[in-house]
Amino acid sequence: MVKIQENQVTVITQPGEHSYVYSKYLEPIAVVKPGEVVEIHTKDAFGNRVTNENDLPSVVLVDVKGLNPQTGPIYIEGAEPGDTLVVHIIDIQPDRDWAVSALKESFGGLSSTDLTPSLQEPLPEKVWIYKIEDGMVTHNKQLSFPWRPFLGTIGTAPELESISSLTPHKHGGNMDVPDVKPGNKVYLPVKNKGAFFYTGDCHAGQGDGELCGVALEVSARVTLKFELIKQKSIEWPRIESETEYMVVGSARPMEDAAKIAYSELIYWMEEMGWDKFEAYQALTQIGKLYVGNMVDTNYSLVAKIEKKYADVILKDE
Amino acid sequence: MVKIQENQVTVITQPGEHSYVYSKYLEPIAVVKPGEVVEIHTKDAFGNRVTNENDLPSVVLVDVKGLNPQTGPIYIEGAEPGDTLVVHIIDIQPDRDWAVSALKESFGGLSSTDLTPSLQEPLPEKVWIYKIEDGMVTHNKQLSFPWRPFLGTIGTAPELESISSLTPHKHGGNMDVPDVKPGNKVYLPVKNKGAFFYTGDCHAGQGDGELCGVALEVSARVTLKFELIKQKSIEWPRIESETEYMVVGSARPMEDAAKIAYSELIYWMEEMGWDKFEAYQALTQIGKLYVGNMVDTNYSLVAKIEKKYADVILKDE
Amino acid sequence: MVKIQENQVTVITQPGEHSYVYSKYLEPIAVVKPGEVVEIHTKDAFGNRVTNENDLPSVVLVDVKGLNPQTGPIYIEGAEPGDTLVVHIIDIQPDRDWAVSALKESFGGLSSTDLTPSLQEPLPEKVWIYKIEDGMVTHNKQLSFPWRPFLGTIGTAPELESISSLTPHKHGGNMDVPDVKPGNKVYLPVKNKGAFFYTGDCHAGQGDGELCGVALEVSARVTLKFELIKQKSIEWPRIESETEYMVVGSARPMEDAAKIAYSELIYWMEEMGWDKFEAYQALTQIGKLYVGNMVDTNYSLVAKIEKKYADVILKDE
Amino acid sequence: MVKIQENQVTVITQPGEHSYVYSKYLEPIAVVKPGEVVEIHTKDAFGNRVTNENDLPSVVLVDVKGLNPQTGPIYIEGAEPGDTLVVHIIDIQPDRDWAVSALKESFGGLSSTDLTPSLQEPLPEKVWIYKIEDGMVTHNKQLSFPWRPFLGTIGTAPELESISSLTPHKHGGNMDVPDVKPGNKVYLPVKNKGAFFYTGDCHAGQGDGELCGVALEVSARVTLKFELIKQKSIEWPRIESETEYMVVGSARPMEDAAKIAYSELIYWMEEMGWDKFEAYQALTQIGKLYVGNMVDTNYSLVAKIEKKYADVILKDE
Repeated sequence: MVKIQENQVTVITQPGEHSYVYSKYLEPIAVVKPGEVVEIHTKDAFGNRVTNENDLPSVVLVDVKGLNPQTGPIYIEGAEPGDTLVVHIIDIQPDRDWAVSALKESFGGLSSTDLTPSLQEPLPEKVWIYKIEDGMVTHNKQLSFPWRPFLGTIGTAPELESISSLTPHKHGGNMDVPDVKPGNKVYLPVKNKGAFFYTGDCHAGQGDGELCGVALEVSARVTLKFELIKQKSIEWPRIESETEYMVVGSARPMEDAAKIAYSELIYWMEEMGWDKFEAYQALTQIGKLYVGNMVDTNYSLVAKIEKKYADVILKDE
Repeated sequence: MVKIQENQVTVITQPGEHSYVYSKYLEPIAVVKPGEVVEIHTKDAFGNRVTNENDLPSVVLVDVKGLNPQTGPIYIEGAEPGDTLVVHIIDIQPDRDWAVSALKESFGGLSSTDLTPSLQEPLPEKVWIYKIEDGMVTHNKQLSFPWRPFLGTIGTAPELESISSLTPHKHGGNMDVPDVKPGNKVYLPVKNKGAFFYTGDCHAGQGDGELCGVALEVSARVTLKFELIKQKSIEWPRIESETEYMVVGSARPMEDAAKIAYSELIYWMEEMGWDKFEAYQALTQIGKLYVGNMVDTNYSLVAKIEKKYADVILKDE
Repeated sequence: MVKIQENQVTVITQPGEHSYVYSKYLEPIAVVKPGEVVEIHTKDAFGNRVTNENDLPSVVLVDVKGLNPQTGPIYIEGAEPGDTLVVHIIDIQPDRDWAVSALKESFGGLSSTDLTPSLQEPLPEKVWIYKIEDGMVTHNKQLSFPWRPFLGTIGTAPELESISSLTPHKHGGNMDVPDVKPGNKVYLPVKNKGAFFYTGDCHAGQGDGELCGVALEVSARVTLKFELIKQKSIEWPRIESETEYMVVGSARPMEDAAKIAYSELIYWMEEMGWDKFEAYQALTQIGKLYVGNMVDTNYSLVAKIEKKYADVILKDE
Repeated sequence: MVKIQENQVTVITQPGEHSYVYSKYLEPIAVVKPGEVVEIHTKDAFGNRVTNENDLPSVVLVDVKGLNPQTGPIYIEGAEPGDTLVVHIIDIQPDRDWAVSALKESFGGLSSTDLTPSLQEPLPEKVWIYKIEDGMVTHNKQLSFPWRPFLGTIGTAPELESISSLTPHKHGGNMDVPDVKPGNKVYLPVKNKGAFFYTGDCHAGQGDGELCGVALEVSARVTLKFELIKQKSIEWPRIESETEYMVVGSARPMEDAAKIAYSELIYWMEEMGWDKFEAYQALTQIGKLYVGNMVDTNYSLVAKIEKKYADVILKDE
């Protein structure tokens, strides 16, 4: 367990190996109290091993156990099964001045994969290195995008399963949802005493769907604060921004992720006082639904509604 | 054929029955020249038959051949197989002051349907009537949304098939994509001499996914202008706004619609001068992907890129 | 219309072009009475154009409108919307002594396709010619299979749509179900006066799933007899053998085809007197479910139950 | 660890709680040598808690952690990552004279579920008790089926993940494949030292797809023998009967399970000496593909080829 107090912020780094699963079976690396502000150091999706355009993933990752090394588990004091863990994302700072993306063999949205196999030859591997500078993430004039950092993976340990850090599901995990960003709150189910929180896979930016499977990957220092809602359980991760309520559904095929996201948003609206079918109607007319990733072992979709539409019922009562 | 010249605008209304298919086998109702401005009158998705909250769809639609009656086919002079038809959407005006939505039996995104059957009882039917007023579409304080009109269905006849006006596919059709709106251009494949253009199913507004299957349905007067790109063929519908390039993919399961939309956007970027894998990389980092509908016989997804990112290569050469 | 009386059997050959759609909009090529025995001549899936191992499909099919040319439409006297057409498959004789299979570009179960695209290179094209001899269909010692002929495509025209002869759906069409074979009866919905029956795409044999997309393709002479069940409508094709009841569901994703096939088999069992949930239970324990094809625009699955289990209730009453 | 020598057969029963995951993180309950014959005692899918028609699953299972309690983990001496574990299924004997099936809420192939949600009311719960007698499993005259026992779940621990005993995947698990039966061999990947073998969920019989989600569930005594193939790794479970080679693919959507099963069978045929595309061709014409289950968190499909077709190449060389 590594935990150093430093100007009110607890710094958490991984002692020894990072985890490639969301699991209750691992030893916590830190204990954190609700309200405490922590700075968590994360590695990039490649474990920081792809550092230039000659580092082909098939070579430098050959003896690695997986993608998306996670920092964790972090034990949240007071968290008990049936609670909800609220994660306030305060800040994300890159801990280097570059990001990396790549074409990986048998991976990505426009390639066959081990779960959607074909007999075709794989796409060629390729690495892109980007410079982080002046609010932009830049490979060359053509590939230059704004710095829009977020956490690709975030979640708690499931009740019984240990889930790969490549897989998003009810516990959160590898959702690749750009709304998991500074200023927003992520609600996660607590299934074990201590919650067993993990995070990692920071992205300097990403398009919807994370099309080739590899965003603008960075190692980072992530400032978070935890809050517990006692004896209030949720089934799927929720996100709240200043203006929106969101739910992330992760499943295959993609329409099932969409059904989960929207139905859970309806349940959230019922908690706010909406009638189920009125909420169904409202989301039909004003809901938003975008794709977080279309490349992982489960696909993640985000359903959202602006607070100004969802909150009407509360104001009227 | 009904065609009345009126202040430079040709008004097109359906003589006799509207069509429930996109088909080359039907008789054109009008002939239009490229460049000509037309005002097309469309019926709502229910053929204007659901007019109050007691008009249950299962009752008033019992003898109707389908949903989404189309105005068309409209014969475009000079259009030949292998061309692309560009439709400039100039204006959409409701031809009444109300819109309608409904829960229909065995229909919608959170219900079993005839193509995804279950043994469960269907959801209860329900009708919502909205008033169109002051830029808003309002049922009550809780269900009140901005007027954001667009064409739910738009397309050309396929080469051989006659496709239901409930189905989006390569020809366009029932895409339910809110970006098919005034100010934007829709590119459609021409597979037959005269193109055989159809449109209908205007929406006063819709959320992503058209969750319950029925948006804010209106009958409308739609002002369009047609343009032909000769001997230039496309496989799937494209949309261009002032700031974005978009492609609509329609398929099941939903991930296939996503793959189609993004791969076709890559092909479009290749036409602009991009390398295939550089375009794949760019869309990974900056592409957008949202759900048009998750309720039809095919699901429609829209992949897009802002022009400021896609056009860089052009400016550099 | 070509119709020659010959030893009690009416021979039907296609005058002019074969059809690539199941459509009510085409002119019938023959009128047949219920009870009449007909011999229908069909072309193979490639329109008989791939005749040796150098006939690459991408070359010899370049100007062809589609795969699976159909013989039809055949007008069934007395057939009216709401009836069921029963097709007795009496015999299938090859009209040549060879069959053909092939790897086609961007086609097949272990390849990306136009509806499930990837950026990978397509598989290489390849043609296999088989000799039909001594009850076997033989390319070489390694590729030698029994003669098990059946009709790959069979169906009636939909009410409004014209559906590609590559697509199986409610009307039948390209189901690629080996149980559509001599000795069995196929039940098809009648949606138009005269039914507009089509068939073609004979297979000298095929494995479940038609994996590479091209079975052992033959042109053939197909002996059929038609029967009408008046004022009895079905939603999806049914098959009856001496020992089994079967329903074919065709959809994407594949689980939807499975749900359709099994739920329609439950509805059939309800017609026989079963309680819905007892039928659900029986099929859980004794139903069979295999894949017809996993390569077409819709996938076809066949759910079945042995008559000895389904008929119990009838015998008891 | 409970292990009692008894007439050459080692009896293994679960000390304490059964497992609801396939996991390397649990303590082995027995150590077994290759070649040793073991009799493993398993509980039924409901943990033997549903014992009569008034035991509604929603009531009697309310405090249970999951379905499919597993007996295990069993440590296989000498097993190391990269080996293949061969499980000879010698015998399955029920340890009681009855079996149970049920309709469970929000579960099953013709119901919405937590992963394919709808807003519809769930199906009513219902329990069926069957008598095992005279080679039949009988509820009443109408629901009476042959005794065809097999192991619903069988597998090894994954490398890092702990996978629910409801989920089939690369490690085996809840495949619900009737070919996992006495007389057949199951090949499983070894990912951890000792393999960590689990089994359970015996079925007295099951139709393809396990339609309602609950087969004829029994607790049983299962006689197995283990064999190791050293330094030979497989990706997905394989089954060998006297006459067939089979691979089980488990994924969503169902077509992905089909692609996995058939492509892995091609790889197996390549190991036998087949050319990849010749194997693709052979399976197109003679392969079999049926649905194990269509109800779990992943669907399982079985691709197979008769040995008489697959072995030809070996005989010729």
